[in-house]
Amino acid sequence: MMTKTDALELLADKREASYALGMAGALIHWDAATTGVPEKSLKMRGAAAGWLGGEAFSRFVAPDTLSAIETLEGCLDELDEKEKAMVRELGLKYRKAHAVPPEEIKAFQALTAQAENVWEKAKGANDFSLIEPYYEKIFAFNRRLCDWYGYEDHPYDALLDDYEKGATVKMADVFFSLLREKITPLVKMINESGKKPRELSGEFPIEKQRELTRWLCDVTGYDVKRGKIGEVEHPFCTRVTRNDVRITTKYHEDNLLSSVYSVIHEAGHAIYEQNMAEELDEYGLGEAASMGMHESQSRLMENMIGRSRAFAEILLPELKNIFGGLKDWDNDMLYRAINIVRPSLIRIEADELTYCLHIIVRYELEKALINGEIKVKDLPGLWVEKYKELLGICPPDYAKGVLQDVHWSAGLVGYFPSYAIGNAYAAQYMAAMKKVVDVDAGLRAKDLSKATKWLGENVHRHGELYLPDELVRRATGEGFNPKYYVDYLQEKFMGLYS
Amino acid sequence: MMTKTDALELLADKREASYALGMAGALIHWDAATTGVPEKSLKMRGAAAGWLGGEAFSRFVAPDTLSAIETLEGCLDELDEKEKAMVRELGLKYRKAHAVPPEEIKAFQALTAQAENVWEKAKGANDFSLIEPYYEKIFAFNRRLCDWYGYEDHPYDALLDDYEKGATVKMADVFFSLLREKITPLVKMINESGKKPRELSGEFPIEKQRELTRWLCDVTGYDVKRGKIGEVEHPFCTRVTRNDVRITTKYHEDNLLSSVYSVIHEAGHAIYEQNMAEELDEYGLGEAASMGMHESQSRLMENMIGRSRAFAEILLPELKNIFGGLKDWDNDMLYRAINIVRPSLIRIEADELTYCLHIIVRYELEKALINGEIKVKDLPGLWVEKYKELLGICPPDYAKGVLQDVHWSAGLVGYFPSYAIGNAYAAQYMAAMKKVVDVDAGLRAKDLSKATKWLGENVHRHGELYLPDELVRRATGEGFNPKYYVDYLQEKFMGLYS
Repeated sequence: MMTKTDALELLADKREASYALGMAGALIHWDAATTGVPEKSLKMRGAAAGWLGGEAFSRFVAPDTLSAIETLEGCLDELDEKEKAMVRELGLKYRKAHAVPPEEIKAFQALTAQAENVWEKAKGANDFSLIEPYYEKIFAFNRRLCDWYGYEDHPYDALLDDYEKGATVKMADVFFSLLREKITPLVKMINESGKKPRELSGEFPIEKQRELTRWLCDVTGYDVKRGKIGEVEHPFCTRVTRNDVRITTKYHEDNLLSSVYSVIHEAGHAIYEQNMAEELDEYGLGEAASMGMHESQSRLMENMIGRSRAFAEILLPELKNIFGGLKDWDNDMLYRAINIVRPSLIRIEADELTYCLHIIVRYELEKALINGEIKVKDLPGLWVEKYKELLGICPPDYAKGVLQDVHWSAGLVGYFPSYAIGNAYAAQYMAAMKKVVDVDAGLRAKDLSKATKWLGENVHRHGELYLPDELVRRATGEGFNPKYYVDYLQEKFMGLYS
Repeated sequence: MMTKTDALELLADKREASYALGMAGALIHWDAATTGVPEKSLKMRGAAAGWLGGEAFSRFVAPDTLSAIETLEGCLDELDEKEKAMVRELGLKYRKAHAVPPEEIKAFQALTAQAENVWEKAKGANDFSLIEPYYEKIFAFNRRLCDWYGYEDHPYDALLDDYEKGATVKMADVFFSLLREKITPLVKMINESGKKPRELSGEFPIEKQRELTRWLCDVTGYDVKRGKIGEVEHPFCTRVTRNDVRITTKYHEDNLLSSVYSVIHEAGHAIYEQNMAEELDEYGLGEAASMGMHESQSRLMENMIGRSRAFAEILLPELKNIFGGLKDWDNDMLYRAINIVRPSLIRIEADELTYCLHIIVRYELEKALINGEIKVKDLPGLWVEKYKELLGICPPDYAKGVLQDVHWSAGLVGYFPSYAIGNAYAAQYMAAMKKVVDVDAGLRAKDLSKATKWLGENVHRHGELYLPDELVRRATGEGFNPKYYVDYLQEKFMGLYS
C-alpha cells in the first residue's frame, strides 16, 4: 500500500511528464498551423506526435495512477481543498479512461481515422450514403459508451457530461425549449422586418489589421508579453506554458470583421488561461473547468463585450485612425454592422442570435439517435426539416447541411451542446458582473480591468478547482440558469431590430 | 537472456521514442530561436525541455539497452552490415554514457550551468580571474574524463575521439604542423603585400536578401520543400524530421555577404541531412558520421563552392538583377571581395584562410592543459603569444581574446579541432570529386546536381554506417589526409594575392 506522501510524489512526477509532453504537443500544433508542414514530413511528424500523445496517455492510465488515487481517496479528511479537487478530477478521468475496453478504443480510433476521410469525400460528392455506415458504427459506439460511462436518467446524459461535467438532458431540454420558444419567433420577426443594416465592406490592408489586432489585445487585456499572435488558416488559442498562451487569427483584406472577432474570441480564451492561479499548477488544476466554461469566456469577450454598443463606440475611432476613410460611419451604424442577423446554413458562420438554433438542431438529432428514436438514415431529412422550422431556410446540398460539421465523423457525440451552454454561462456571468462593475463605462474608457478582475477572481483563477455548476453558483449566486442568456438576446436584438 | 528478435524490437521501440522526443526538442529550439520565448515562460519552458531531453537520455541509458546490445554483440555473424553498424554505434554511445559516475555528471552539469553565467560576467568585466576557478574544475573533470573514456597514447585522444571518432593527437599534430608550416607564412605574405580588395558594401533591403536566399537554396540544392527557412539571431540548421530539415539566417541591411554565406553554410549542413538514405532510419544510423563530417559538408558548400571563382561568376549577375546597381563590379572583383584575408581576433568572424590558425591556438592550449604541461592561469598569456605568432595580432582585452568562446565554460574540451578536421575532409572530398565531376562547369550552368549526387552517394547517404575514417577512405581512396586542404588553401590564396 502506498503512503499519502508516496501517492502525492508519484502524481507530481506524472504531472511533470504531462506538462512537458503537453508543451511539446502544443508546439507541434502551433508550428504546423503557423508555418505549415512539408508534405513529405507529414507521416513522420504524425508518428512522432502520436508517440508523444500516447506516452502522456499511457503514463496516466498506468495502474500506479489508480493506486495513488485510491490511496488519497482513503484519506480524504487529511487533504486540503485543492488536494481533494485533484483527487476528484483524477478519479473522474482515470475511471472514464478505463471504462471502455481497450480493444474497443482501438477499433473506434481506426474507425474515426477512416471516417474523417470518407466524410471529406461524401461532402465533395454530396452523397450521404458514403458516410452512413460509418455514422451507424460511430453512433452505436457512442450508445455503448453511455453504458460504459453510466447514467441515471437518459443515456445521452453520459455523453453530455463527458464534455460538460454535470450537464444532463433534463437541464439541456429546459435550456433549448426556452431558446426555441423565445428566439425562433424573434429571428422570424427580424427576417420579416426587412431591415438590412449596412455592412462594413472595403479593402483593409493586412499590415494595418495587424496594428488593430495589437490594439484589440490591449483593450481586452490579453497579455501579449505572456504569449504570441500567430497567423493561421483556422484560428485557435493554445497554451504552451501558463506564461506563453498564444492566439491566432486569419486576415482577409476584404473582410475586416472576420479577424477582429476571431482575435477577440481567442483573446477571451487566452485571458482565461493566463489568469488561472499559479498555485493550482501543483495540483494539476490549472485547466479550464470545462469546455463550456472555456467557451463562455471567449463568447463573453467576443459577443457580450466585443459586440456591445460601448465597444462600437471605441472601435469606430480606432478604425478611422488606423485605416482612414469611414467618414460616413457613426457609432450606431457600426453597432448595427457588427450585429447583423441573417439566418444562414453554416453553424460556424452564424451570427450571435441564430448560433444557438444551429446547436438545437444537432442536440435534438443526437439525443434522438442515442435514444433509438431515429436512425442514421433519417438524419438528412430531419436536418432539412429542422433548419426550415428553426431558421426558415433550406440547405441546397449536404455540404451546407447535414455534412457540414466534422464532429460526428471524428466520433464526437454530445460535444455541440457545450457551445450553447458556454453562451449561457457567459450571459449569466455578465449579469452578475454588471451588478458590481460598470462594464460599459470601463469600455468607453478603454479600460476593461475591472471586468477582467471580476472574471479573474470569480471564474478564471479557480481553474478546475470546482465543478462547473459550483463555479457558476459561487460566481453568480445560483446554478446554471439559461434565462439570463435568453433575456440578453431578446433585449439586445429587440433593441436593434424593432 | 534476450533473443535477437527481442533485442531488435526493444531497440526499435527506443528509437521510436528517441525520434519523437528529438522532434519535440528540435521544435522547441526552433520556436524559441525564430519567434522568441516570453520572458516569464523561460523557466517552465526550460523545465519541460529538460524533462523531454532527460527522458530521451534515461531511456537510452537504461539497463535493458545494454542487454539488447550485448545480445546482438553475441550474434554479430547473424547480423547484416547495417545491424552491425547499429550495434557498434549503440555500444560506443552506451558505454561512454556509463563511463562517468552519475554523481560526477550531475556535479559537472551544475558546474557548467554556473560557469556559463560567470563567463558572461568575466567577459563583461574583462576579468579572467572570475572564470579561472571554473576553468580549473572543468579542465580537471575533462582530465578525469580521459581516464574514464580510456586512451592509448595521449589522454587528449579520448576527448578528440569524443567529438570526432578516431581522431588522435598523433593525427592532429601532423595536420596542425602542416598548417603552421604552410599557412602562417602565407598569411604573413598576404599581410605584407598591402593588397586590399574592395569590399562589397552598401544597403541591401532585407526583402531582396530573402529573394537571394531562395536563389541560393535553389543553386546549392537545398530542398526548401523538405524544410523551411527561418530568421534568427545566431543561424543554425536543425532536423525536425528527415523531410523537414530547416535552415536559418540573419539579415543585416548593411552586410549582404553575412547572410549569403550563412545560408550557403547551413544549406550544406541541410543537404547532408536531406540526403541520408531513408533505409538507415530503422537502424538509427540516419545521423552524420561525426561533427567534423557535418562541418565538412557546410564548409565545402560555403568555401570551396560558395567562394570559388565560378560561383562569383553566377552570383554577380544575380546580385545585379536582384539589388540593381553594382555596375562597376566585375567577376574578378567579386571573387576577391568574397575572399578577403584579414587576420582578425575572433574565430567565428575569421576568413577561410586564417580560420584554422584560430583552431591551432585552441588545440595547442587544450592539449597542453590536459597533459599537465600548462595551467589554467597560463591561458591568458599563452593566448596572446600564440595570436601574435600565428596571426600577427594581439587582442586588446579578454573578450576579444581568451574569453571569446563559450566552449570551455560549457564544458566542451576537444571540440575545436573537429572544425578544422571538417575543413580538411571537405578539401579531400573536393579533390576526389573533381577527378570525376566538373564542379565549376556545373556551377557556371547553375546546376550543382552532379556534385551533390557525388557527395550524396559517397558521403551523405551513408549517414553513420561507417566510421569517419572508413567513410573518407571509401569516398576518396585514402584515409584522412590534410595535404589536400593545405594545397587547396595555398593554391587559392597564392592565386588571389600574389
